[in-house]
Formats: sequence, structure tokens, C-alpha cells
Amino acid sequence: MPPSQPLKTTSVIEWTAGSERSVADDLAVEEPLEIRVGGVSVSVTMRTPGDDFELAAGFLFTERIIDRRGDVAGIASGHGPDTLVSGNVVDVTLRAGKAVDLARLQRHFYAASSCGVCGKASICAVRVGGIRRPRTALRVDPGVLCRLPDVVRAAQSVFDRTGGLHAAALFDAAGALLAIREDIGRHNAVDKIVGYALLQGRLPLSECVLFVSGRGAFEIVQKALVAGIPVVASVSAPSSLAVDLARENGLTLVGFLRGQRFIVYSGHERLTSLSAPV
Amino acid sequence: MPPSQPLKTTSVIEWTAGSERSVADDLAVEEPLEIRVGGVSVSVTMRTPGDDFELAAGFLFTERIIDRRGDVAGIASGHGPDTLVSGNVVDVTLRAGKAVDLARLQRHFYAASSCGVCGKASICAVRVGGIRRPRTALRVDPGVLCRLPDVVRAAQSVFDRTGGLHAAALFDAAGALLAIREDIGRHNAVDKIVGYALLQGRLPLSECVLFVSGRGAFEIVQKALVAGIPVVASVSAPSSLAVDLARENGLTLVGFLRGQRFIVYSGHERLTSLSAPV
Repeated sequence: MPPSQPLKTTSVIEWTAGSERSVADDLAVEEPLEIRVGGVSVSVTMRTPGDDFELAAGFLFTERIIDRRGDVAGIASGHGPDTLVSGNVVDVTLRAGKAVDLARLQRHFYAASSCGVCGKASICAVRVGGIRRPRTALRVDPGVLCRLPDVVRAAQSVFDRTGGLHAAALFDAAGALLAIREDIGRHNAVDKIVGYALLQGRLPLSECVLFVSGRGAFEIVQKALVAGIPVVASVSAPSSLAVDLARENGLTLVGFLRGQRFIVYSGHERLTSLSAPV
Repeated sequence: MPPSQPLKTTSVIEWTAGSERSVADDLAVEEPLEIRVGGVSVSVTMRTPGDDFELAAGFLFTERIIDRRGDVAGIASGHGPDTLVSGNVVDVTLRAGKAVDLARLQRHFYAASSCGVCGKASICAVRVGGIRRPRTALRVDPGVLCRLPDVVRAAQSVFDRTGGLHAAALFDAAGALLAIREDIGRHNAVDKIVGYALLQGRLPLSECVLFVSGRGAFEIVQKALVAGIPVVASVSAPSSLAVDLARENGLTLVGFLRGQRFIVYSGHERLTSLSAPV
């Protein structure tokens, strides 16, 4: 099986004000990736091929199946249903003696029954355990934040000819781009970033800013917190639950980052020259 | 517990070119909905509250747990972990004698092992069974398609003050709006539409056009096919797998529907005055 590509060209019809023509169009590839742990299938995620080892490592880390780089003994392409090595199967081998709780991965399918003592059932039911406040003295200048979208667009311009890919990008406090990953799923792009940092031994990312295209959903904020990221910025709106989780855990959450304007939903104290809301 | 609302107002800081002010902002509410079948938890989905019975019914239909309106004996709010009736739990009671295969819902977690005979493992692993070509003589005028985004925006204008909600809307071939539903998740908005049609006895939707904001992912095309919808239009890019699935099953898939321009990825024969690609 040839390695999967992130883009696929196909022939389509472009209709413009009554006239039509056949054109070649680049599509963002969406294919399932089966993630296995020690040969056991634990997840099938729809993703854009590329950086699949990072995606698998990041997924297992943000779902808290693994806690550190040393928990991973090896990552390899696995065998598909045709017994050939498949580009759509990644098998992660854990270190000897590492105990795993794969039942954690079922939280989206079977709600936790242990939430009875907690009034905040809506967050409890879907949150991973062990999240804590980012430990950092990081401060970011608002002017630096405003430059991030242009940097991401420039870095994406070659790769994303499709209009169908999300980006997640990691920056330092001065606005230098450290890593960028793209995927049809925002959560996968973030897992690829976290997996990159995990495999490079760069976790926790307590001195970094995470930029995501699109919306700031609960899951994105949760993954950032697991990776120790103190600042998350996006070009669009966060959800109520994302804001709740950010505020509870002292994460700086910025949305609608466009031009010389943005909205601070949580953690304004990390942005220099911003005062408390009045 | 008070009924959940789709919007929540919170105080945020707006930063504009160096000046800042505190403003009230409407957030799209994101909360988990636990769907139960006969008291058994089968799914937790992050959704925007509203039309939850339709969402549960649509989810069970598009996942092919139920096949028709008559399979549903009742839908009610369930009990949360605090034993009080919770707005975030919906319990669906099936008709006596209805056999269900809840293992189907695990396809995103454990890949089907029965795909060995099929070369198209990438689609097989994630597809629901029993999809067939839409049976319809429906034809749609391109001019009608071009009007759909404005109709949806007008219908959304009061509800979506957040910039964070997706819309799914059902139209007839003349462009008349039949139903519109909003959600922070595109797939939930589509499930709400399908659930509405199921509970109203309007399935299959073989004379309808489905409009979705955002991207046309595989899952959206699959849900449309299960509901018998022959035409799906979106304002943005579809994925490669969405196009593959649409072409295999004769679904008309339109993307980048903006102003007087769109791209036809599949099924051009349902659009009047369009010829085959040259």
C-alpha cells in the first residue's frame, strides 16, 4: 500500500453565474487512523495522513493513557485487515510494567458513574482526570498575539490549498513559531503538536502559546491543559464549556483573534498591559 | 436543575489596538448529552442544548440502531448522577421486541475485523452498514442552490449571536426552508434535522436538499445517505472521503457555495443545466 498523502487531486465542476467548467481541485484527505496499544485497538480517528506517530503519541498522552515520553517503548505502522502493513494503523508499544486503563477512552461512550459527589456533572462526565493549573510565569504581549494568524497562514500557504484543513501551531512568548501541524480535525492537529512535543521531550509546554484555527472547543482547552500549555488563542469563538474549564484552571483563553482585535475569555493576567475587567 | 439554554452570557475583555474594555459576550453553550437506550448509556456527545429528543432520535437513526419511527416507543429526560431529572440525559425506549446491536456504536473505537475481504478498508472501518443510493428523480436549479446560504443566515441571525454555532438546514427543491437546527457540532446539527424528520414521519428525505455550514466531512455525507437525502451543499470544502462516499452512492455533493459560485464534487446530473465534466 503506498503511503497516504495529505492532499488528493480530483476533477470537479466549477459553476460560476451560469457557466461551468471542469477543473482540478485539491481535497484534504480524510482517512481513519486506527491506534493500537500493544496490539489492542483503542481508537479509530478520522484524520489527515501525516505525522501519524505524533498523532498516536499525542492522543494517548492527552487521553492520559501515557504520562511521559518514557512510557513509550516504540511506535510502528501496524497491519491492516489485508495483513499488509497499513499506513492507517499505528501500534504503540509501552514500556514493560506500564499499567494502562483503556476504559478511560470510553468516557465519550459510557458516562462516568463516579460523578455523583460533584455538582458539575456536565464537565465531570467528559473531563480527563489530573488536570492542574499551568505552572509558569509566562507573559505575552498583545501585539505578539496579533501577529500569530499571519505567521500561521504563511506557514500553511503551500500545504493547505484545499481550504479544508485546520492548523495548530506552537509559539514561544516572543511569537517565534516552534511547530505547526495540520489536520481535517482540530483535535487531531492539537494531538499532533502535543505528540511532537512529547516525543521531543519538550513537555510540559509551560512557556508556549497554542494557536488553533477555528473554534476553541472544550476538548482543545482540555488537551492544552494536559500538556501544560498556559495560553490558547483562536481566530473564532470558544464554547461555554471551554471558557468554564479555562477559568477553573487558570488558562489564558483568547478568541476572535483577527487583525488588531481579540477577546480575552480567561486569564487576562498573562497578557501584558491588560488590567482586570471593570 | 433549570433547563439548559443554547446561549450563555459572560463578561469578557475586548482588546482593540491597545485599548481594552469589559463587554458582555454571548457564548454557544457546549454540554455533554448522554443518550441512553432502555436505561443503558450508549453515547455521550458534546452538544448545544435544544432539540435534544430530536438529536437522540437522529443519532440512533443515523447510527442505524433504529430503522423507523415505529421503533421508538418513547423519549424522556433521564436521571443524572444526582438522581434528579437532568437536562443532559435523554432516555429512548424502544418498542417491545426491537433487537438492537449496540456494538455498532463502538466502530469509532474498535475497528471492524470483518473488513478483510474488502479492499476499501479506509471507508469500511468507519462506515455504517446498509447505505444505498438515494431513490429520487429530484432535480435542483443552480440558482436555487445559490440562494440557500442567505436563507440560512437570515434564519440564524437571531439565534446565533455567538459566531460559534453550526447550522444544518433542510430545503425542498424550490429552495423553501423546511427546518433548521443549530449546534456547536455539525454532526449534531445534522442529527437534529434527521431526528426531526424521523419523529415527524418524513423519512426518507428523498426530495430534499441538506445545507450545512462549514465543511462537508465524511460523517455528514454518511448521515445524509442514511436519511435518503440526495443533495448536500456546504459553504466550505469537503474531505476526500466525503467525496469518495458521495460518488460511490450517487449523492450530489456541492461545496464552496458562496455568492454565484459553487463546486460540484459528485452527482452533477441532479443539477439542471449542468453537463458532465469535460
